[in-house]
Parts: sequence; C-alpha cells; structure tokens
Amino acid sequence: MSSHIKAALRQFLNADEIIESAPQWLTDQRCRYSGRADALVQPKSINAVQQLMRFCFQNKIPVTPQGGNTGLCGAAVPDGGVLLNLSKLNRIRSINLADNAITVDAGIVLQAVQQAAAAAGRLFPLSLASEGSCQIGGNIACNAGGLNVLRYGTMRDLVLGLEVVLPNGELVQHLHPLHKNTTGYDLRHLFIGSEGTLGVVTGAVLKLFALPKTVETVWVGVDSIEQAVALLTLVQGVFAERLCSFELAGRFALALSSDFSRIGKPVDASWHILLELADSMESGSLGEELAELLLAHGFGNAVAAQSETERRVLWTLRENISAAQRNLGASIKHDIAVPIARAAEFVAGCESALQTAFPGIKIVVFGHLGDGSLHYNTFLPGVSDNGVYEYEDAVNTVVYENVLACGGTVAAEHGIGMVKKQWLPSVRSAAEIALMRAVKAELDPHNIMNPGKLLP
Amino acid sequence: MSSHIKAALRQFLNADEIIESAPQWLTDQRCRYSGRADALVQPKSINAVQQLMRFCFQNKIPVTPQGGNTGLCGAAVPDGGVLLNLSKLNRIRSINLADNAITVDAGIVLQAVQQAAAAAGRLFPLSLASEGSCQIGGNIACNAGGLNVLRYGTMRDLVLGLEVVLPNGELVQHLHPLHKNTTGYDLRHLFIGSEGTLGVVTGAVLKLFALPKTVETVWVGVDSIEQAVALLTLVQGVFAERLCSFELAGRFALALSSDFSRIGKPVDASWHILLELADSMESGSLGEELAELLLAHGFGNAVAAQSETERRVLWTLRENISAAQRNLGASIKHDIAVPIARAAEFVAGCESALQTAFPGIKIVVFGHLGDGSLHYNTFLPGVSDNGVYEYEDAVNTVVYENVLACGGTVAAEHGIGMVKKQWLPSVRSAAEIALMRAVKAELDPHNIMNPGKLLP
Repeated sequence: MSSHIKAALRQFLNADEIIESAPQWLTDQRCRYSGRADALVQPKSINAVQQLMRFCFQNKIPVTPQGGNTGLCGAAVPDGGVLLNLSKLNRIRSINLADNAITVDAGIVLQAVQQAAAAAGRLFPLSLASEGSCQIGGNIACNAGGLNVLRYGTMRDLVLGLEVVLPNGELVQHLHPLHKNTTGYDLRHLFIGSEGTLGVVTGAVLKLFALPKTVETVWVGVDSIEQAVALLTLVQGVFAERLCSFELAGRFALALSSDFSRIGKPVDASWHILLELADSMESGSLGEELAELLLAHGFGNAVAAQSETERRVLWTLRENISAAQRNLGASIKHDIAVPIARAAEFVAGCESALQTAFPGIKIVVFGHLGDGSLHYNTFLPGVSDNGVYEYEDAVNTVVYENVLACGGTVAAEHGIGMVKKQWLPSVRSAAEIALMRAVKAELDPHNIMNPGKLLP
Repeated sequence: MSSHIKAALRQFLNADEIIESAPQWLTDQRCRYSGRADALVQPKSINAVQQLMRFCFQNKIPVTPQGGNTGLCGAAVPDGGVLLNLSKLNRIRSINLADNAITVDAGIVLQAVQQAAAAAGRLFPLSLASEGSCQIGGNIACNAGGLNVLRYGTMRDLVLGLEVVLPNGELVQHLHPLHKNTTGYDLRHLFIGSEGTLGVVTGAVLKLFALPKTVETVWVGVDSIEQAVALLTLVQGVFAERLCSFELAGRFALALSSDFSRIGKPVDASWHILLELADSMESGSLGEELAELLLAHGFGNAVAAQSETERRVLWTLRENISAAQRNLGASIKHDIAVPIARAAEFVAGCESALQTAFPGIKIVVFGHLGDGSLHYNTFLPGVSDNGVYEYEDAVNTVVYENVLACGGTVAAEHGIGMVKKQWLPSVRSAAEIALMRAVKAELDPHNIMNPGKLLP
C-alpha cells in the first residue's frame, strides 16, 4: 500500500477499515483479470465512504467499488488507487410490510436479504448462482438477473430507491418506499447498471412479494427450441405470473451435468426445459392442471417433481451445468439475450456459422429461455486454457453477429465491465454513448470512479 | 401560422400533415394554460418527424410534442414554435406472444392498445381515467400510473423498448423485446418521464400479461386509514399479486360521488376501500376465500359485487369522485404519494395544518392507497374560480410540507409540467438537477424540446 495515501486515509478511517492485504480482492472470480491497488479499504459507515470519496475526488485518486467480487466481466478489478470493498456495510436497515419493502446496506449478501424477507413472511425474488456471496450493491451495479426474471424482473425492477455517494462525496438519498414518483429525469435507473462508474451505491430500498405456498416443478423434453417456445407461450397464457422459471438446456449441456452430478437424465430429448410454477396461495390442483395441459398439447415427455427432494434433484441438474462444462477445458462464454420468438433462429444460425468457422467446436447452450437470455459457451478442441484467448475475438465476432442479426444483446445479465467494452458501440449508437459520456463527465469530471470499465 | 415556417415545413411535410387551426391543442384540458404556436403539425411517418426535428434544430425553433392533450400539469401546451401532435402515428406495429410484447406507434390511444392486447388474448394493464383519449407517447412522457400500479407497476415498468427522435433529428431505435439487456447506462428510463423535453418518443415495445379470468370486487368500510393499511397488508399477504386495485375514498369524497351518481353508499364508514382481486385462472373459490378473510379479521362492513353490473356500480362510485367534486367550485389539486405506512400520519397532519391556516377548507381525499398515491384536493369556501390561484402557493406550501415530512413526493403520476417546476428542488438535490441539466444540454443544446417544462 502506498504509504502517503495510507497516512491520509487514517485521518478519517478507523484502523480496521484499512486492510493491509487482501489478494483475493485483486483478481476476479474467473481469474481472468488481476489488478493492483494503492489502498484497500472497508468502511463501516456511510460517512466514512463520503469522506473517502471527498479525499479521492480532491486528489484525483481512482476508486473501484467492490461487493462480493463475483462478477464475470472484470468490473470490480482495480487498476491502482483505492479498492473500496463494501462488505462491512451489511445491515438490514428496516422491513416495512405495509409498503412491501426492505431497506438494506449495499454490502449485504443477497442470500441474507432473501432470508430476512422470508423471516418476515415475504419473498425477495432475485435468485442467482452466486447468491451466497454476491452483494446487493453489485446486483444493482450490474442489474443482475437470474432465475426469476420472467415473473419478477431484473434487479432494476426490484429497486424502489437508492442511496448513492457521488464521486465528490455528496450523498444522494432516496430511501422512502415510493411506488409512484415522477419528478424529473429518473436518475435511479442511471445508477442501476452503471457498474460503479458513476458513484458508490451504499443503500437501497427493495420490493418484497408474497412467499410462494405452492410450488410445482416439471422437467419437459422437447424436440426443438420452437417447441420450447410454444410450450412457454402455452404455459404463460394459462398460468400467467405463476410461471417463475423456464430454463433451457441443450442435450449436450444436460449430458455433461448428468455425468458430473451422477444423476440420470429425467427424460431423453434434444432440448430440456425445467419449468416451475409458484402460487402465493395453497393450491391442491395446480400440479394436476399443469400435467393435464402438458398432455393435452403433446408435451408428454415430462417428469414432475413429487417432493422437495425430487425438486432439488431437478434443479441440481440445471445448476450443475456451469461446473460440469469445466471438464471440457477452457471456454469462451457469452451472456446474451435475444427476442424469445427468435431464439430458435439464433441457436441454429449461430451453431452453423461457428461450425463453419471452427470445425469441431463444442457448444454448451443453457439458460433462462423464459426471459430470452442464454448462456452460450464455446469450447475449441485441443486449445489450452491460455491459448483460448487467441481465438476469443474471432469466436465473439461470429456469436455476436448472429445475436445482433436476431435483434439481441451482447450483455444480458452480467454487464459490460472490461470484457465487452469494445462491443458497446455495436448495441448503442454514437449519440447514446456520447450521452453516457456526458452523464459520466457531469458526475465524475476527474474520471475517478472505476475508470476503464463499461465505456469504450 | 407564421408563413415562412409554414413554407419551410411544406418542403418535407404533406399538406395534410400541416394543420391550419386547432385551438383545442393550444389549451390544456383543465383550461389552466393557453399557449400559441407558429405551426401545428401532425406527421404521418417517423421520417417526417425526423425531418421536422432536423429543420427545427438547425433553425432553433421550439417544438412541443403532444399526444391526447389530457395532461394535468401543462406539459403539452406550446409557447411558440411548432406544436407536434402525434395523433396520426397511431398504428399497432406488431404483437408477439412468445415475448409477451406489443409494438406500437406513440400516437395510439391507450384504449386501442388495451383492445388489441385483449383481441390477442392478453392484457395491457395500464388503466386510467383518460384511457379513451390519452396516448401511449404521453403515458410514457409522464410515466402514467392509474388503477393497476399495485400489481403491474407504472408505465415505466411496462416499457421494454423505445424509439425516439432526438432533438437533432437522429433516430434512436430499441424496439426488440429484450427482457434482459444491460449495456451501459439505461437511457430508456431517462426518456420515460421526461415530459417531451429530451426528444420525441415515436414508438414503444410494451409488456403484455395474461387476461384475468376471475375477478372479485369488494367495497369495505373502515374506521381509519390505519385500518385501511392493515387491510392492505392482510390482503397482499394472502392474495399477493391477485390484488390489482386498492382504492381509497374519504367519507366526504364518497358522499359527493354518491349524490352525483345517484347511487347509494355501499356501506357507511369513515373511510372506504374498493379492492379488486384478479386471477388469470378460473377460480370458483376466490370470492369466498376473500369474504372469509375479511370476516375473520374484523372487516365485516363490506359488500361484494355479485355480478359485472354490481361491479360497474362500485367502480362508478369511485370513478365519479373527480366529476362530483366540481360542484364544490374551484379546487387546488395535488397529485402526491407517501409511503403507505405513513399515509394515516400524512392525512391527519395535513388536514389539521390546513384547517388551522384556512379555516373551513374542504378536503376531498381519494386515490390509489395500494401504491401510496393520493388525489388530495382542497376547496376554499367562498373563493371564485379565478380567485383560487391567489391561494395556490399558500395551500401548496402546507400540503407539500406535510408530504415531504412524511417522506413523500409532490408528483406521483401526473408529472411536473409547468405547474410544479418550482417544487422540483424540494425533492431533488442541486446535484441531481445539475445532472438533469447536463443530460438536457447534451441532447438538446439549443433548448428547443418543450422549453419551459419540467426543469425550474
């Protein structure tokens, strides 16, 4: 740690808010990016964050905010300056059932919010693989998605209000749970998804929902993505918001997970759907009604979970795909979304283009078909972990050209970070990027907030 | 119409896109503001809007976009320049059931979108008093709310994508139905709620939902707003997203509407709640379950609609409050929201403060308690229609001070327009307003887009 910065920090931070060494904070979880920092801090109060930002603003010292450091695009890896870890700002501030809202510090772990909501008889619906270690501030910074977006929206849709320390140390605080509030341009949504480049989110008011009392989970095999989309439209038309999850896995993805998990495939099929209905009221007939609907419409290649244990087995098969594919070696991953109506066109077109360009390439497709977002991971045979980056631009170009041709996006739920900066101009016009720069310049004239991230 | 502007417009607009006279466009619906325009245009294509904006940008001519002209804050009243009426851009572009999305022109009337959705077996849930004449572009511009926000959110929550002509004529088009897309700062949400000051919204992709198949409507009398909030929490905890509407009316508001409508009061009580549950599935027992819950928790002073006719009668009582109160004379109206948990505190505190400052003042309170927004209208005895504006600042000061003390907002669902500009600094900090100005300056350097609106 740079000693003069450290000396300055001691004027307004307690000794235990300044960390001597934390190498795990300097590398992202995929071990793709490693950074360095002149100082590592972990403030325990909003006031400390404000003083830190004031100091860094005056001295033009870069600040990288970091939550659980579970991001996949390198947005929380520092490049000098101060690494601002939010983990010690981790309180539940209040729960308010009349407004169905919970107010929390940004550094609280997602799972702790889920648990606090459940203890109050409510659901906080954001759910994703890293929920045991990712933090609310990071979820806000990258507008996290996950398994329940179909019903409850992304993090953006779950935030009623924000508390943000601006780059100059000023506090902007809107923590009243207001469901209607139209007073000028909506700045809350500028901060959500801004990946730490506009300020430090220190607190948030989040929406709560009723806890599910009835859950029905079914695994359905289908012949094509067209059929999967027809199933989605059918189930949504009948069960509407009861449909919480509609997950897709290709035959190859499932085979990997089945081997890895030592769990047999629920059904044999080209494409697999894990769908889950939830109702906030007791319903004895929901499962039957779903089974009848599936049978009546030719979706008989299906298995319904008969117990919570069986449900966990089905979810384990879905959740283990990420871990199982690591046996294939190094991959080039894509976090994309396309209009659901064009998912089949995308998957067919992209596979064909990739096989032409990279014969023998292996493709693991899975994800949240119910909201149009897919994890699209590619494995080049015989290419080593380090060698894979040589091919990255070429593979990305094929994948993203196919995504864009289908009206899709290059970043669905993991953000831009460092890894996708050069692709931003393919989805945002020059005028839009100029507006983003103007927003950034107004709030952060010295470009100290997470420099080098998001904007190309 | 200024003849040289008109001659210039003829170079890129058809004869029927230039309107000779339309006095009804120059005055707002409350007849509070009257403006003037050098030219009235009604383009029939996006290209015509682009050419118009290019011309106005080059010549620094103000442009006021206007939809159904149903706004209550004067945001669509021109002050010279071009009045751009969007009414002829009124097509449904497409409906896509796989993505549960409808793509429309901005000038389409809200009710036409509701009807097109219903014809496709889906629900477009935005619903408000002016739905027969207000337009989607206007709903987006002021982030409209209405009756179903509790379940479906405000207009902001219903917009998946936007098409906007920028002040310089450039088109920004994001009309693919993407439910997950995090690619830089979210500019969509800047345009939503910007009241025509940043560009011209010409099209939008909107979310659709399942149509309700079971509807249960109940009128409940309660002794206090505290009881009403307890009822809301109870019903939401059990029926969750089935609760679509939770409307409040005070005893005085209901008496006015009852007389005006020639419909007897459903129950006698200090405060009245109209609540409606809807389910996308057939349910024979929903009404019974609701009745049992109400009885079990002491909410027995209630009447349930036994038919669609009875349901319409209850809704008529609620909807006629606005018309009925006109018999009281001129009013000073407030479109406010407070945290639901503090609604009782606000209503008691504000009434007491108003009666002290203006003895004999009459207060009509009604609105959407389920989302915390209230119509709070005040009538000064013996003050004429013209005389009322003399008292406006003084009454507003009392009301808004009480709103702010309870963590509320001065503008819930009607926007800022001209009428509330001076109150913006009471709910947004100087830094936030500076950021708004920076956004405005970047997109609209000559300040031609709806000048004089929204920003103080």
